Amino acid sequence: LEQNSSIKSVSFVGSGNVATHLAIALSDADVKIIEVFSQNPVNANKFAMDFNCTAVDSMQNFSAKAQLLIISVPDSKIKDVANELSYLQTLIVHTSGITGIEALSLNKKYGVFYPLQTFSKKRIIDMKDVPFCIEAKSETELNLLMNLALKISNNVKNVSSEQRKILHLMAVMVSNFSNHLYHLAHDILATNNLSFDFLIPLINETALKIKDVHPSDAQTGPARRKDVSTIDEHMKMLNAFPEYKEIYRLLSEQIMKKYHE
Amino acid sequence: LEQNSSIKSVSFVGSGNVATHLAIALSDADVKIIEVFSQNPVNANKFAMDFNCTAVDSMQNFSAKAQLLIISVPDSKIKDVANELSYLQTLIVHTSGITGIEALSLNKKYGVFYPLQTFSKKRIIDMKDVPFCIEAKSETELNLLMNLALKISNNVKNVSSEQRKILHLMAVMVSNFSNHLYHLAHDILATNNLSFDFLIPLINETALKIKDVHPSDAQTGPARRKDVSTIDEHMKMLNAFPEYKEIYRLLSEQIMKKYHE
Repeated sequence: LEQNSSIKSVSFVGSGNVATHLAIALSDADVKIIEVFSQNPVNANKFAMDFNCTAVDSMQNFSAKAQLLIISVPDSKIKDVANELSYLQTLIVHTSGITGIEALSLNKKYGVFYPLQTFSKKRIIDMKDVPFCIEAKSETELNLLMNLALKISNNVKNVSSEQRKILHLMAVMVSNFSNHLYHLAHDILATNNLSFDFLIPLINETALKIKDVHPSDAQTGPARRKDVSTIDEHMKMLNAFPEYKEIYRLLSEQIMKKYHE
Repeated sequence: LEQNSSIKSVSFVGSGNVATHLAIALSDADVKIIEVFSQNPVNANKFAMDFNCTAVDSMQNFSAKAQLLIISVPDSKIKDVANELSYLQTLIVHTSGITGIEALSLNKKYGVFYPLQTFSKKRIIDMKDVPFCIEAKSETELNLLMNLALKISNNVKNVSSEQRKILHLMAVMVSNFSNHLYHLAHDILATNNLSFDFLIPLINETALKIKDVHPSDAQTGPARRKDVSTIDEHMKMLNAFPEYKEIYRLLSEQIMKKYHE
């Protein structure tokens, strides 16, 4: 039974960051990649070369060889792609944070396989720590998917669509928005001929610290101390960057409110 | 000459996070801590116990034994403290990012010794990577301070007051503001009975990534993709948290503008 309940082959729709990083991790775990379809044939062929699999030229041409079909496409297309694939009996999942499981409800067997991480090309990710948020229509498929995720990560959880949406929103807040702050610092430092390298130990420590310290206790800086004269001076320095000044104002106000009201 | 140009003893005004972390690192580098003054005698006595030094009960009572006096007090008090200490011939520094070197100009010999890092009690910092931004009135003092910093860090730079102010402002942006985003995520996840642990690998990867990838290339997520329907759904989900919704709106707009205008 355990032998039968193990997924050993997958195919992909999509060949972007998430599909690529999943394919790397699954290949490394001896899961065979069978086929790939991508709207962009150049990407599909590259993916097929990289993972020694077949690029199919239409979603109608998937064979039934793979035990799992992973849809890793923009959210707005998941439902249409899933519906086009409803001719297959194969278990099918999407990898989205925001899209509910019901987007796949016209398929026979379905679930969600969401890795909560930021993926960039050129960047190798150790999947062992990545939380995999798994959901499925039935207990059998849930076990199959959780076992598959456990082949590549030690951090596998059964998470509902509603919980996953909240996690995804929080991921945007802590990752995309922090990265935007790094981006603006990079810009302003470059304008002043200062290297971004000055900030790297600080950025790392800020991120590492919250493993051990509640973010409420980890806070430091002028807004935390309600050091109004420093805040005023910073605001003046940002006159040349009105958008960044608006971020500074809003976040400083919120931090002051949290600690001093 | 090299022997004479090495600082082997320091005293402190202030016993907060920065003073404590500097005292730990300096003691470890065999620099002797001689005296400490703090407005709060309980803190001063604790500091004196921890670092086997003397708590002086007034700023007028520092001996001339230490080769360097480190002022690590709130920015608004630096100038007054420095003026009170102008009776001493000792080299004197402050540890502030925002305060100019001229705050110490009534003293005989002075400089700045600014570690660009976020310090919390209970959190051990490896100072070896911390950028030390050093400034001094004269070349002799600059060399003394840079040599002292090199005893505890491999990342020592001569930085002007103007450059230091910019670095400090950027430090607030990437550290205090990112921590605020972690804090709000912690709050919202708690409201939904979800563990903050879900986000820790993501937060770490987001911070680590910018060592190798320009923040502009590292960006991912709905605003980067101009995925308006996901953004709209996130905004709806944040209706219960109007302040956080305002952050979401502002930062998503700015990211979209950066990549799609």
